[in-house]
Amino acid sequence: MKTAIQDTYPDDVAHCYGCGSLNEVGHQINTVLEGDETVTEFTPEPYHTAIPGYVYGGLIASLIDCHSTGSAAIYTMRNAGKEPGSEEAPRFVTAHLEVDFLAPTPMGPLRLVGHAAEVKDRKVVVTTDFYAGEMRTAKGSAVLVRMPENTFL
Amino acid sequence: MKTAIQDTYPDDVAHCYGCGSLNEVGHQINTVLEGDETVTEFTPEPYHTAIPGYVYGGLIASLIDCHSTGSAAIYTMRNAGKEPGSEEAPRFVTAHLEVDFLAPTPMGPLRLVGHAAEVKDRKVVVTTDFYAGEMRTAKGSAVLVRMPENTFL
Repeated sequence: MKTAIQDTYPDDVAHCYGCGSLNEVGHQINTVLEGDETVTEFTPEPYHTAIPGYVYGGLIASLIDCHSTGSAAIYTMRNAGKEPGSEEAPRFVTAHLEVDFLAPTPMGPLRLVGHAAEVKDRKVVVTTDFYAGEMRTAKGSAVLVRMPENTFL
Repeated sequence: MKTAIQDTYPDDVAHCYGCGSLNEVGHQINTVLEGDETVTEFTPEPYHTAIPGYVYGGLIASLIDCHSTGSAAIYTMRNAGKEPGSEEAPRFVTAHLEVDFLAPTPMGPLRLVGHAAEVKDRKVVVTTDFYAGEMRTAKGSAVLVRMPENTFL
């Protein structure tokens, strides 16, 4: 089983509600590289509803956001000749996020598939296809920038 | 005190995790009209972190999303000569959401201020300025479409 990129985030930046392995009440998503694509799977809780039976848009946006920061780390490591998961991952933050909601997203297992649209050392653009079962219900695009060492100090 | 638009959503579409008054574990945001602007105030929980001390982007996107659907209901009612809160509100869903993260958002009281960029009967565009205290840390734009009666049936 591959190491999720989030499991190699430095501890001091691993508390994100969406993707931090140290946030005990958060979503703790796991993103891995499969071929040229990044993949995150997530099953929402029953209360993550929009209309009963369907997933609320804020969760969809949140998953796309954190999946994209993880994907940015994966793609920059790959570009540098490193195996994602093999050492501490670079940490990206989102500068711009776009989500198109294509259809209502039924409750059940969700799958995000990311693609590298642009990979530079400090800026990455990731596009995401968002699936509920076999149906693509949303698509996303995110611009991620490398977190400077002193961003939050 | 003004009635929040979310308190007048029909019961069968009031379960959204972000804005449904009937979702007991959700954010239950409240949006009101103040002059020409729509306003939502929200204080995140301590675990809604990105980096410790700062709010995670998924919550920001989620708040902008639900604030925008509420704003769309408010603006269409006002355009029809109705007082928002005076009767059941029309229900909108998000077709497209964009968020620019301008600066890290410190934990503490948040305030979203919405503007009507376009208001038609079935399609509304809302832009949002997102503040942490006095500082604008994000801005959003959303395209909302009127929920057809049978969308989820």
